[in-house]
Amino acid sequence: MRLSQLFAPTLREDPAEADVASHRLLLRAAFIRQVAAGVYTTLPLGLRTMRKIEAIVREEMDAAGAQEIRMPILLPAEPWKTTGRFDLYGELLFKLVDRHGREMILGPTQEEVVTPLVAGEQPSYRDLPLNLYQIEWKYRDEFRPRFGLLRGREFLMKDAYSFDRDEEGMVRSYQVMYDAYRRVFDRCGLRYVIVEADPGQIGGGVNHEFMARAEVGEDLFVECERGDYLADTEAARPMPPEPAAPGERAALEVLDTPDTPTIEGLTRLLGVPASRTLKCILFDAGGRTVAVLVPGDREVAVPKLERLFFPTPVRPFEDADFAERGFVKGYVGPQGMPEDVLILADHSVRAGADWVTGANEPDRHVRGANTPRDFRVDRYEDLVEIREGDRCPRCGGTLRIGRSIVVGHIYQLHTKYSEPLKATFIDEDGIAKPFQMGCYGIGISRIMAAAAEQYHDEAGLAWPRALAPFEIVVLIANRDDERVVTEAERIYRELLDRGAEAVIDDRAVAAGVKFTDADLIGYPVQVVVGRRGLEAGEVDLKLRATGERSRAPLPDAVSVALDLLSRAP
Amino acid sequence: MRLSQLFAPTLREDPAEADVASHRLLLRAAFIRQVAAGVYTTLPLGLRTMRKIEAIVREEMDAAGAQEIRMPILLPAEPWKTTGRFDLYGELLFKLVDRHGREMILGPTQEEVVTPLVAGEQPSYRDLPLNLYQIEWKYRDEFRPRFGLLRGREFLMKDAYSFDRDEEGMVRSYQVMYDAYRRVFDRCGLRYVIVEADPGQIGGGVNHEFMARAEVGEDLFVECERGDYLADTEAARPMPPEPAAPGERAALEVLDTPDTPTIEGLTRLLGVPASRTLKCILFDAGGRTVAVLVPGDREVAVPKLERLFFPTPVRPFEDADFAERGFVKGYVGPQGMPEDVLILADHSVRAGADWVTGANEPDRHVRGANTPRDFRVDRYEDLVEIREGDRCPRCGGTLRIGRSIVVGHIYQLHTKYSEPLKATFIDEDGIAKPFQMGCYGIGISRIMAAAAEQYHDEAGLAWPRALAPFEIVVLIANRDDERVVTEAERIYRELLDRGAEAVIDDRAVAAGVKFTDADLIGYPVQVVVGRRGLEAGEVDLKLRATGERSRAPLPDAVSVALDLLSRAP
Repeated sequence: MRLSQLFAPTLREDPAEADVASHRLLLRAAFIRQVAAGVYTTLPLGLRTMRKIEAIVREEMDAAGAQEIRMPILLPAEPWKTTGRFDLYGELLFKLVDRHGREMILGPTQEEVVTPLVAGEQPSYRDLPLNLYQIEWKYRDEFRPRFGLLRGREFLMKDAYSFDRDEEGMVRSYQVMYDAYRRVFDRCGLRYVIVEADPGQIGGGVNHEFMARAEVGEDLFVECERGDYLADTEAARPMPPEPAAPGERAALEVLDTPDTPTIEGLTRLLGVPASRTLKCILFDAGGRTVAVLVPGDREVAVPKLERLFFPTPVRPFEDADFAERGFVKGYVGPQGMPEDVLILADHSVRAGADWVTGANEPDRHVRGANTPRDFRVDRYEDLVEIREGDRCPRCGGTLRIGRSIVVGHIYQLHTKYSEPLKATFIDEDGIAKPFQMGCYGIGISRIMAAAAEQYHDEAGLAWPRALAPFEIVVLIANRDDERVVTEAERIYRELLDRGAEAVIDDRAVAAGVKFTDADLIGYPVQVVVGRRGLEAGEVDLKLRATGERSRAPLPDAVSVALDLLSRAP
Repeated sequence: MRLSQLFAPTLREDPAEADVASHRLLLRAAFIRQVAAGVYTTLPLGLRTMRKIEAIVREEMDAAGAQEIRMPILLPAEPWKTTGRFDLYGELLFKLVDRHGREMILGPTQEEVVTPLVAGEQPSYRDLPLNLYQIEWKYRDEFRPRFGLLRGREFLMKDAYSFDRDEEGMVRSYQVMYDAYRRVFDRCGLRYVIVEADPGQIGGGVNHEFMARAEVGEDLFVECERGDYLADTEAARPMPPEPAAPGERAALEVLDTPDTPTIEGLTRLLGVPASRTLKCILFDAGGRTVAVLVPGDREVAVPKLERLFFPTPVRPFEDADFAERGFVKGYVGPQGMPEDVLILADHSVRAGADWVTGANEPDRHVRGANTPRDFRVDRYEDLVEIREGDRCPRCGGTLRIGRSIVVGHIYQLHTKYSEPLKATFIDEDGIAKPFQMGCYGIGISRIMAAAAEQYHDEAGLAWPRALAPFEIVVLIANRDDERVVTEAERIYRELLDRGAEAVIDDRAVAAGVKFTDADLIGYPVQVVVGRRGLEAGEVDLKLRATGERSRAPLPDAVSVALDLLSRAP
C-alpha cells in the first residue's frame, strides 16, 4: 500500500473529546472517527488491525471446534421478555418498534437467539456437544459512553455458546474455551490476568474474566505483589490479621460525643485513628436483623454478605428499621444487642481491642469495648472490602489493586437460558432435557483499544506485530532525489515479495511529517531511505517498540528490516 | 470438515413460509434460519458461501483502488433530515430514540455518514479521487418482507462511495466501478444483464442496474430476442410502427354508447378490437392541460411523460379538473380540443386510422376519427409502456420482458449529497467546492439467493464452484465397512492436501440420507465410496450441476474428482 493513496488522515492535535491514550491515539492515528456518542467509523488502518484480531479469534475458535454462524442484530423483543433480560437490561437495551408495531431490540448479546436456534433443530444427545460462535456488532445504550472504543454503544464482539448434555460436558466445553482464550490473548500480545469473578448472587456458575492490564481500566482486580494470588475485588479475601494479644483491657466508659454520627467526626473529636473504632452496621436479611462489625477504617463488602445469606435477600437498615427496632442511627454499638440479632464480625475485628463504638444512645459512644466481656460475636466471617495493602491469603505478601480492561469473559450458564426458553435435546433415555450451556465473549474492538493502551508512548502507538495494520513502513525522506525514490521503491517491493506487510510513505509532504506519522501510527519497523544515508551506502532503521535505531548497508536493508521485525513484540 | 461435526440441520420438508426456490432451498439445506420477518441467522454453510461472495467483492474493490472502511449501523438521524431522506424513506427507515432522547436510525445505506466523514478531513484536490467502501448489514423496514433473502429487512451489502473533483473524474470513477462490477458478477457465475436505468425525475444522473436473471425476480427489464437491446422497462422505447398507408378514410360518425366509459366496455359494445380505439388521457402539467393519445390496447407510460415535462410536475386529471375544464370523463376524444390543450400522441398512433374515440359528450363515442381531418396532434413522442412483443428499436426484432433480481446498482450522484451536507474539498484555485460523488451497491446476501435461484433443480441447490460452501463431498456409503471408511478417509485427506475444499459425510445416518443431503446442499462434486464400488476397485462420482455420473479406479479417485471439479460451472 502506498500512503499517498491510503485514506489515513492523521491529526496533529489531540482531539478535545478524547480522555484516554487509546481514544486519543486511535483518533489521531486515523484508526477511527466518531459518528455519534460511543459510535465510530473504522478507517482503513483501524479495519486492518481489527481484522487481524478477528482472524486470531476465528482461528482459535475454529481450532477449538466451535463453528461460526452469524446472527441478526435486529431481534424480536419477545424471547428477551421470556428470559427477563428485557427488564434486567432496562435502559441499556436499544429498543425500537417496527412499522407493524412489533417491539424489537438491537442485540447486546445473543443467548435469546442462539438457544431457540439450536433447540429448534430438535437435536439429540448425539449432536452434542455443540459450540456456535459469531463475530458481530453488539449494542448497549450506555448512559455515558466514553474512552472511545473502551465503552462504546456499538462494539464488535465474538460471542460463543456451548451446548452440552450434562454438567460434566459443560465444564469440559468451558475448559476448551478457557484454553482457547489464553491462546487468543497471548497471540494478541496483551499483558493480562485471568480472574475468577464473583459468581454473583443470582446463583450463577463459575465464570472468569480475562483482564488486560491498563492504568485507565475501570475493572479492578486484586493481586499479590509476589504473583501468587489473583482475584476479583468482590471475591478477594485478605489474610486475617493476627488476633490481638491477650492482656489487660481498658474499662468500658461512656463518652459524650454530641453530633458525631460518623467515624470521621468521631476520630476528630476523640483523636483516635479510625482503625481503633468499631463500626456496627445493621442489615435486614429476610426479616432478621444482622449486625456487622468491621474496624472503622474498613468498609463492609455487601456482595460477600449477600453471598453468605443467598438466596435470602439482604438490605441495609433504613430509617424505618431503626425506628421500629429501637436502634439509634449513627450511634449503634454491639453491646447489649438483643438475642435475636445475629452479630457477624469480620476477621479483622479479632485484631483489635478496647474499641471505641456506639453507645446505643443519641450523641454518645463508648470507649474500651471488648469481646466477650462487653459484646458477643456470633460468627467471624470475611466481610470487608479488599484494599491496597491487605495481606495475601496465600503468602501474606502485600495485595495491590490492579486496574484493567476486561477483554474476555466466559460463563458456565448451566440451564439459566435453556430452562426459561424451554430449549431441550432428546437424551439417550428418550427424555427431553434442557441444555447445559456456557457463553464466551471477547471484545474485538475493545482489544484494539486495550492494545493501544498497553503499546504506546508519547509519540504515538507502537503496535505488537500481530496487531499492527502494517508491519514495516518504508519512508522516502527526500522525494526530490531520484535515487532515494528508486531505492525506497526497490526495498518496498522486495519486502512485499518476501511476504512482509509493508507500506511506502511516498506522500508529497515534508520528511518530518512522515517521521511523525510513522511514530504515531506505530508500524513496528521503520526503514528510512534518505539522501545522506545513501551517500554512505546505508539506510536507517528503527524498531518502534524500543526506539532502537540502527543502520544497514543498502544491500542488506531488507533482511535487516525483517530481522528487526522478528524482534518486535 | 466432517459432517458429523457440522451444524447443518437439513430439513426433509419444504417450509410452509417459503414461496420461492431460493428461500425454500436455503432453509432446507441449512444455510439460513428465520429469526423474525425478513431477519435471518446465517448458518455455517450459508456463512461460507456468503464469505466467498464477500471475498470476491473485496478483491475486486481493492483491485479497483477502493479502500475498505466500516461505518456504523446505528446512526444519528440529523444528517438524514438535512438531506431529506429521513422523510423520503419514511416508514422504510428503522427509527429509534436513545436513552437521552436523541433520534437515531439503522442505516439503509450510508451517504449521510461517508460524505461528512470525508469532508471532515478537509481534503484538497490532491487527495482525490477517493473511493471508500464497506461490507456491512443494512436495514429497511419493508412493509412485507418476503422471498427469504431477496427482500429482507436486514441484508448484507457492499456499498462504495467515490469522491471526485469534477464531473469528468466522477464519470471515470464510475466506469472503474462498472468494470469491477462486471468482474464480480462474472466471478460469482451469475447470468445477468446490465441495464441503464431510468434516471428518474429527480434530476438524477446516469445509473446502471446489474440484474441477475430469475423467473421469480420482481425487477423487470426489456430485451430483444436477438440480444442487441436491453433497457429498463420505464426507459425502453419500442420501434415506432409503420405509419398507416394513405388512402380513403371513413367518415366521422357519432355513436350512442350508453354507459361505456371504459375501453373494455366499448370494444364489447362495438365489436372492435381495443387497438382500433384511441385513448385520450388528460393530464395537468403545471397548470397546462395535456391530452395524451395512445391506442386503446396500450398504457400511457407516466414516467416518460414526467421526463418530458421535467422539472414541471405532471399529474393525471382529477374529477375537479374534468368539471373545471368541461371535459366529460370517460368520453374524451381529441376532436375539437381547445387551442390551449397540448395534444401529444405516441408514435404508435401514426399506425392507425379511422379511430373509435370519445365524442366529448356523455354516453357517446365517434367512429372514423382521423388526423389531421378530425383532430390535431401537436407532437408525436414515445409515450407507451413497453410490453412483450413490441419491436426492438435497434433491429425490429421482438422485445421480451425479462424478470430479474437486482444484485448491483451504481449511480452518478453529482453533488446530490455533497451540496446539502456542505461537503467540500479545496480545489487548486483555493476555493471550496462540493464533491462530485458516485455510489455503488452490491447485495451480498442477495447474490446468495440469486445464485440459488439460478443454480438449483428439483433435488436442491447446485452451486457454481466459486460460491459453493464446500467443493467436494466424500460420501461414506457403508459406515460399517472398515475398508469403505478407510478409503473414504484417505480420499478426503488427499483432497484436502491437494487444496480442495472437501467435506466427508461420516454421519451415522443411512446412505440415502447422505445422497439426499449432498444433492440438497449442492456441493459441485460428489465422491461416493461404497462397498459395491470398492469390490470392483472403483468409486462413484457425480457432477452435481449436470447430474453426470462416472466411475474412477480407486487410485485415480482424487485426480478424477479434481478434474470433475474443474469442469463445474
